[in-house]
Amino acid sequence: MRKSVAGRLKNALALSYQQNHRRWFLSSSHSRFFSSSPPVLDSAASTSMANSSSSPSPSPLTLQTINPKVLKCEYAVRGEIVTLAQRLQEELQKNPGSHPFDEILYCNIGNPQSLGQQPITFFREVLALCDHPAILDKSETQGLFSADAIERAWQILDQIPGRATGAYSHSQGIKGLRDAIAAGIEARDGYPANPNDIFLTDGASPAVHMMMQLLIRSEKDGILCPIPQYPLYSASIALHGGTLVPYYLDEASGWGLETFELKKQLEAAKSKGISVRALVVINPGNPTGQVLAEGNQRDIVEFCKQEGLVLLADEVYQENVYVPDKEFHSFKKVSRSMGYGEEDIALVSFQSVSKGYYGECGKRGGYMEVTGFSADIREQIYKVASVNLCSNISGQILASLVMSPPKVGDESYESYRAERDGILSSLARRAKTLEDAFNNLEGITCNKAEGAMYLFPCINLPQKAIKAAEAAKTAPDAFYAHRLLNATGIVFVPGSGFGQIPGTWHFRCTILPQEDKIPAIVSRLTDFHKGFMDEFRD
Amino acid sequence: MRKSVAGRLKNALALSYQQNHRRWFLSSSHSRFFSSSPPVLDSAASTSMANSSSSPSPSPLTLQTINPKVLKCEYAVRGEIVTLAQRLQEELQKNPGSHPFDEILYCNIGNPQSLGQQPITFFREVLALCDHPAILDKSETQGLFSADAIERAWQILDQIPGRATGAYSHSQGIKGLRDAIAAGIEARDGYPANPNDIFLTDGASPAVHMMMQLLIRSEKDGILCPIPQYPLYSASIALHGGTLVPYYLDEASGWGLETFELKKQLEAAKSKGISVRALVVINPGNPTGQVLAEGNQRDIVEFCKQEGLVLLADEVYQENVYVPDKEFHSFKKVSRSMGYGEEDIALVSFQSVSKGYYGECGKRGGYMEVTGFSADIREQIYKVASVNLCSNISGQILASLVMSPPKVGDESYESYRAERDGILSSLARRAKTLEDAFNNLEGITCNKAEGAMYLFPCINLPQKAIKAAEAAKTAPDAFYAHRLLNATGIVFVPGSGFGQIPGTWHFRCTILPQEDKIPAIVSRLTDFHKGFMDEFRD
Repeated sequence: MRKSVAGRLKNALALSYQQNHRRWFLSSSHSRFFSSSPPVLDSAASTSMANSSSSPSPSPLTLQTINPKVLKCEYAVRGEIVTLAQRLQEELQKNPGSHPFDEILYCNIGNPQSLGQQPITFFREVLALCDHPAILDKSETQGLFSADAIERAWQILDQIPGRATGAYSHSQGIKGLRDAIAAGIEARDGYPANPNDIFLTDGASPAVHMMMQLLIRSEKDGILCPIPQYPLYSASIALHGGTLVPYYLDEASGWGLETFELKKQLEAAKSKGISVRALVVINPGNPTGQVLAEGNQRDIVEFCKQEGLVLLADEVYQENVYVPDKEFHSFKKVSRSMGYGEEDIALVSFQSVSKGYYGECGKRGGYMEVTGFSADIREQIYKVASVNLCSNISGQILASLVMSPPKVGDESYESYRAERDGILSSLARRAKTLEDAFNNLEGITCNKAEGAMYLFPCINLPQKAIKAAEAAKTAPDAFYAHRLLNATGIVFVPGSGFGQIPGTWHFRCTILPQEDKIPAIVSRLTDFHKGFMDEFRD
Repeated sequence: MRKSVAGRLKNALALSYQQNHRRWFLSSSHSRFFSSSPPVLDSAASTSMANSSSSPSPSPLTLQTINPKVLKCEYAVRGEIVTLAQRLQEELQKNPGSHPFDEILYCNIGNPQSLGQQPITFFREVLALCDHPAILDKSETQGLFSADAIERAWQILDQIPGRATGAYSHSQGIKGLRDAIAAGIEARDGYPANPNDIFLTDGASPAVHMMMQLLIRSEKDGILCPIPQYPLYSASIALHGGTLVPYYLDEASGWGLETFELKKQLEAAKSKGISVRALVVINPGNPTGQVLAEGNQRDIVEFCKQEGLVLLADEVYQENVYVPDKEFHSFKKVSRSMGYGEEDIALVSFQSVSKGYYGECGKRGGYMEVTGFSADIREQIYKVASVNLCSNISGQILASLVMSPPKVGDESYESYRAERDGILSSLARRAKTLEDAFNNLEGITCNKAEGAMYLFPCINLPQKAIKAAEAAKTAPDAFYAHRLLNATGIVFVPGSGFGQIPGTWHFRCTILPQEDKIPAIVSRLTDFHKGFMDEFRD
């Protein structure tokens, strides 16, 4: 009885609700003041459908019904080979001795601290103090933290409204931290940098996504990307529905970047109706490890200016240069040195706390410096940034620290320098050792590791191995990488994940395992490779 | 002379390069093993274009040539009114006394710590220790940190391979932290939770984007969203090119959610060829502050099951319930209590460290619990997560802490409880005071603030004010909010940013200013409102 009254009451309410809605829907101001604006369905004409019977349940979500752009996207660095490695690692933990190796050696990803690299003490001191400012005034803190870390923490906190490290910041990042980053860029380049050009982001990846989102309207929009490339670019272009326009780095000249090739690919794209919007350059190179010469960079800047392309400069390895005859020059510095200013070229420089000597991947800090865009485009970038509110504050702080580390005279300077130089010189030694090791293997050639964290050796696989791979329904480089992993625990990423000249085979190997592991890697790799070649030699 | 030789050499190299390329492009394996796969332009047929003359520079990037989805997207919470507030704040700093108020009172955004809310000590202790584990063994640390924070930091570090808080983690987040979160969900709901269902994210926003990216293929795909709604949803749907299918919450019944209305809007959308894929429910409500009754939630679950819709449950305010007669129930708990399991309903629950009593917005931590999806769809979600590598580790740690705070008997428990209860009871008092204040104003009605951090009062504006707004080319609610800001420094967000029944006007006001500020807000608002009504009364 009670239920029935309630039911009738509900029906009556529903009816009045429906009538009200009919009136609301007929209001002319519906869309005018609804300022949040994806297409919004206007249901004015459809209230009569309210009582129609429900259709049967649609089928649940399947691969056929999700966004096909998601399906298309691939990300080899964390792909199938890594899944296999993780499975082997679990098996080793459960059954030690179950494989012919006792640990997995992850050479697949630029993740230095996962392989034992220690963080820079000063950076971590400042982060800890900013996380828990309540201890800044305590006497014990003096004994635990360096004086300049305490001072730096105060400085940073004073730049945050209310010293609230737990508050959302400005969507571009805390202004005082952007000031520090701009000052660091100026010190690096010798040209002015504007804190309002800095967008702090959760690592460089979200910054790249943001630019792709801005630039790509449809599959008729193309982005020029190096091949081989870091698969973030192909993944991001796929997710945003654009077309990757490849330009090939020249392996024979140490992964050189020729504007002749850029021009050719641009024209080819245009002839197919592709509107090329931007050029991605990764310098130092990933996965290729080359450092561009300044003259080469000038050519690239000139090309982008002439063609009206946005230059997307991935400069996250700017601290990772290992050879005395090469030096990092930012594209902004190069373009300014050519006399080109804001009006001449649209340039985005990506930087990250994950690379360099700091290697703070887990902190997800980074920024992009956006120059040469009009105010109304900048507003659009700001709006997209604001939808995610802000990047994480610890990452923001760390991004400011890597661009303004301790200076001569600071209490931490000597220990900071020792830590930094220790890491960088060790990386240089590891790069050289691995490069030499690869070049000593039958059928493998490896360019010089000038910078970044990777080698991308070319492997001339015997036809028999290629046929075996085909039989196993896998790419030959993936076939080799799987064999290597199963035999030695070493994880390389097959070159097909980065793109390579068809018919050539490569893999990417990081230089990040700690130095005491390198001899074992070299000897395991050498033994495996000999066995592999013996098995498949034509 | 030298230049000329170099030039000829370059031409020769270029020629050989071009010839090589022709061969490479003709290789049949081009696309087969290029596994990173947006559409990749195949330039095989186009090498003859290499020497064609360059076309004139395209025009630089303009609003007409960027992705129109970016243009469409709006995000009112950080929109125009906030830009104005920031300008006024700068003016006040430069010229104190330049406005009739001495500070800006930001009631626009759920950002508690920016308004003075203090972080939970235990959480910050653990974060600081995990940031700088080198101090864990030092004797001074015992004096600075609570024993259970030290113990918890050790526990967390032991769950991270190599104790490396600076390494990228598993793309779903550190397994041990997901275990803790799953245990917290189980304790909350009384039903099992699987750590493999948890995806840790940089706040809830990226998780929402990830799901929209998965679900939306084109503007023919619709997402049912409450109106009023949190503009993250409209922004994300716009950015991903889908259609927002509105369902209206019923203000007259305390922002009730009627399945009758859901059904009607679903049918209306279907009749227009829209394929509705998911239903967004925000509980407790944002901007509306209501807490759904369990029976209502059952109806919603049943509706989603019947219609085969993914239920996207925004549950970030799960700790923010202020009235004794309401309680938070997760949609997972409700669906399990109805006997529905993995096979029956696809359900995503979003949680964040930014809300609750913790309010750690700047840390960008959060997770989604993904249940009821097939393994192959889960793999696609994992792939998309992996493109951004992982969420920030401090945010991951914090997400585990809010789901497993100190327990009775832990050293920190009493202080933790006091901090938590102090914040929540203060929020409840503030909500009630503001709700009463609104209801005391002429022409304003305000529903009960049952939960979340907002009030969404309805203002019956005089026709004269509406005409003045029209003359000023602004929406009437924005007109009111601008006037209020200029007169008092109080920042409300106009209701048009959230959606409202056409012809009705609202604004969103957070309950977050500290309690000692509330009387001033009430009195300034009251004075302003009287003056406004006197000026525009019909």
